[in-house]
Amino acid sequence: MNGAESLIRTLVGGGVEVCFMNPGTSEIHFVDALDRGHGMRGVPVLFEGVASGAADGYARMTGKPACALFHLGPGLSNALANLHNACRARVPLVNIVGDHATYHRKYDAPLTADIEALAGQYSKWLRSSPSSAQVGRDCALAIAAACATPTGIATLILPSDTAWGDDGGVVAVPEVAKAPMPSDAAVKQARAMLANGKRTALLIGETLTHGEGLAVAGKVAASTGARLFAPFNIAHVERGAGLPQVDRVAYVVEQALAQLKDFEQFILVGAAVPVAFFAWQGKPSVLLPEGAEVLALATPSDDCLGALEALDMSKPAVLVPASRVEKPQGPITIEGLAAAVASTLPERAIVVDESITSGRGMMAATKGGPRHDWLVNTGGSIGIGMPLAIGAAVACPDRPVLCLEADGSGMYTLQALWTAAREGLAITVVIFANRAYQILKGELAAVSQPGPKALDMLEIGRPDLDWVKLAQGMGVAARRVTSLEDFTRALEDGYASGGPNLVEVPL
Amino acid sequence: MNGAESLIRTLVGGGVEVCFMNPGTSEIHFVDALDRGHGMRGVPVLFEGVASGAADGYARMTGKPACALFHLGPGLSNALANLHNACRARVPLVNIVGDHATYHRKYDAPLTADIEALAGQYSKWLRSSPSSAQVGRDCALAIAAACATPTGIATLILPSDTAWGDDGGVVAVPEVAKAPMPSDAAVKQARAMLANGKRTALLIGETLTHGEGLAVAGKVAASTGARLFAPFNIAHVERGAGLPQVDRVAYVVEQALAQLKDFEQFILVGAAVPVAFFAWQGKPSVLLPEGAEVLALATPSDDCLGALEALDMSKPAVLVPASRVEKPQGPITIEGLAAAVASTLPERAIVVDESITSGRGMMAATKGGPRHDWLVNTGGSIGIGMPLAIGAAVACPDRPVLCLEADGSGMYTLQALWTAAREGLAITVVIFANRAYQILKGELAAVSQPGPKALDMLEIGRPDLDWVKLAQGMGVAARRVTSLEDFTRALEDGYASGGPNLVEVPL
Repeated sequence: MNGAESLIRTLVGGGVEVCFMNPGTSEIHFVDALDRGHGMRGVPVLFEGVASGAADGYARMTGKPACALFHLGPGLSNALANLHNACRARVPLVNIVGDHATYHRKYDAPLTADIEALAGQYSKWLRSSPSSAQVGRDCALAIAAACATPTGIATLILPSDTAWGDDGGVVAVPEVAKAPMPSDAAVKQARAMLANGKRTALLIGETLTHGEGLAVAGKVAASTGARLFAPFNIAHVERGAGLPQVDRVAYVVEQALAQLKDFEQFILVGAAVPVAFFAWQGKPSVLLPEGAEVLALATPSDDCLGALEALDMSKPAVLVPASRVEKPQGPITIEGLAAAVASTLPERAIVVDESITSGRGMMAATKGGPRHDWLVNTGGSIGIGMPLAIGAAVACPDRPVLCLEADGSGMYTLQALWTAAREGLAITVVIFANRAYQILKGELAAVSQPGPKALDMLEIGRPDLDWVKLAQGMGVAARRVTSLEDFTRALEDGYASGGPNLVEVPL
Repeated sequence: MNGAESLIRTLVGGGVEVCFMNPGTSEIHFVDALDRGHGMRGVPVLFEGVASGAADGYARMTGKPACALFHLGPGLSNALANLHNACRARVPLVNIVGDHATYHRKYDAPLTADIEALAGQYSKWLRSSPSSAQVGRDCALAIAAACATPTGIATLILPSDTAWGDDGGVVAVPEVAKAPMPSDAAVKQARAMLANGKRTALLIGETLTHGEGLAVAGKVAASTGARLFAPFNIAHVERGAGLPQVDRVAYVVEQALAQLKDFEQFILVGAAVPVAFFAWQGKPSVLLPEGAEVLALATPSDDCLGALEALDMSKPAVLVPASRVEKPQGPITIEGLAAAVASTLPERAIVVDESITSGRGMMAATKGGPRHDWLVNTGGSIGIGMPLAIGAAVACPDRPVLCLEADGSGMYTLQALWTAAREGLAITVVIFANRAYQILKGELAAVSQPGPKALDMLEIGRPDLDWVKLAQGMGVAARRVTSLEDFTRALEDGYASGGPNLVEVPL
């Protein structure tokens, strides 16, 4: 079999069953090999940033890697912004990057680029396969690397002659080593801190904010009196009635400081010390109160669940009580939008939140609603929302996906709508159309009395974007709403449709 | 003045008067400084790939750099694919990349990235400014580097504290050194080759395919009997009746080999040996006939115009005679589309050609038409067309721009349409909607009997993209045509409108 087929068979054998792709000439043998009956699902995208974001969303919901196929350095470049986010989410992901044939690289044909330099900082494992005979082995190593703790991005570069060479073989993925437990000393110190009567915050990372990790974290919090926090940019939180509560550290520096000011000690389990998203003049970078004691019990490379389980978890978790907000009425307000989302949220929904300034209040309003998963932008590179929703919907075809999207961010990767239509994915996209990079207008106003040229750079009206037409242009049903009743109904209709749909909310 | 203002004043003082931008929080002082009365024009874009492609188009038409402003590593990442193309076009360009404040970087906030690693391979000059006092000097050096032969990309990283720090100063751009002449020996050898009676091809680079370079190249060709060729991916060719003819080396290997097979010697002036765009199994990488003599008279780092002027240019150039094709009629065909474009092309039009498979015959049909400029994709990274058209239209507001765009490529950077509407640019975009990555279907068929899953990855219908709605959704007037008469009229109406407009041609 040729290298491309050995690659696909090794991927599927290693549990990598979905490939988000935008191939080119150098990847044509990979595409050709899709029909050889091994069960790989190819999902086409019209822009590579959709592929990397979708692979991220898929991994967040399944815990296992998808693969993403890119066309040489430039194809990978288009994926980088969402790979940046995926890297910050620490999701497992296998990138396959097609390259020129090994013997052709020296001629510096137009598409030649230093792929290693582009992928390096986001890849925990990176290799260019030297021959078709070694593609299977390299692929197996890539999968193993992506799945080892901390999970992450493995990038395999595939020169076209290694794809078409015919001495490929299927290779089993080697066993992944178990992550080490923190030292006994660290566990002992954490236990002592949790028993010393001081006000303690337990900052937990992305492996502990859903599923078993969350259940254990809830018990530890209840047993020790510690309060659970997660970073602002936490990849995946499971929440709603009947689950332990985890609070995200706020984005706004003053709010974060207020949130954390009363804690005397912080125990980090797979999370870093919370810092400001940006440097703002006259504001601190570190968000912890001065003089607080900090213990890094476990890093993301450690067995974070094991670390939690070594603490006191003798009491059952305190669970968020059910509370459903009423359906709102009247003209559109930020609070009303949150109420509309909360009052209609279906059981087991997956919420992708890239609503930026328009989504204030969404998390508070949905706190006691039916159980759901909440996925956010982890790396600050905007344009992740709709791609993430694609990946989540592919991962969980029986669950409704709600994508809360700002208009400015949404325009970055609007091509995702076409993939949603092609694949018939149950995604309801809400576009909050304030026709501005609203958050930046706030930043500008904080800096000076804004002039007209400056404001012009931050307003994305004139002409206004018509999201109904944009969605319809890619085959997605869409409507614009003008009241909260309208919006509530549109959400209900969207969920009921079982397919992709978009709601534009002018603000 | 603060660093941001010193930057903008230094840019404008150095002739950099347009900034294509998508700023964020870390660039807010740059945005704020736009209103300080120094004449910098800010052009907003909704996606950074539009900014880099537009800066490229601007530079191709003016010969001088624009600047492009990006938001940290992820913002730059989105620009990379078109920076790859710009790098291959060897255009002057100044990137400004905002970064975290110098003291904030160590905290690894979510948007932190290794910007140098991302920009390195495309930047002939790269520096992170260490303090506001040095921003002006660094900016002046960046402009000088971008403008020195061979012109290229300079990337200046601007930590936010260097933008807000208040000891900035305006610095004059240092004089740019003149490019060196090729050695006397090389010139002597070229002269001897051109006098030896053998069939000679003169392969010229992007500085010699328009303006004075083209005029001189035409004289050399007429005086020596050499034939003028340019690389397939040549950045900017001026053509039409009354100009010397330059043929692009074909993309298809067999066609290129046939084009060049009868030449016994090749003289390269600012161009490389032509090579295949990709490696194809069983086909050569180098497109020259075996045994041909090759002389690299001048590299892009040399004074290419001077090199040509040192050759025999005693005779006037042979000029392409005027010949206008008739307006076509009837159902849409590839040949008819070329005739429609050729028969309506306005005087001094700028044609941006990213039509891929649908544009066959466009260059032949327009060969004897009114003078025009032809800009193509230089690096093979698709999605350059509409951004390039934006830049050309900003550079030449009194000239009509025709953008010939494939549907697959167009979807990469469709956000460009909004900027065309916002700025009221005279761009007529033609979308050739074959609803497939048609060129890849050809590649796949050459490799094997394509299966349904493979074909599915290369078809971008189901649902079909509706480009009329997509354009209208971004404020651009649009129509779909169903006959050649329709298409011809739509082109004429589009040029007459003096604004942005889009024509979808279903194929």
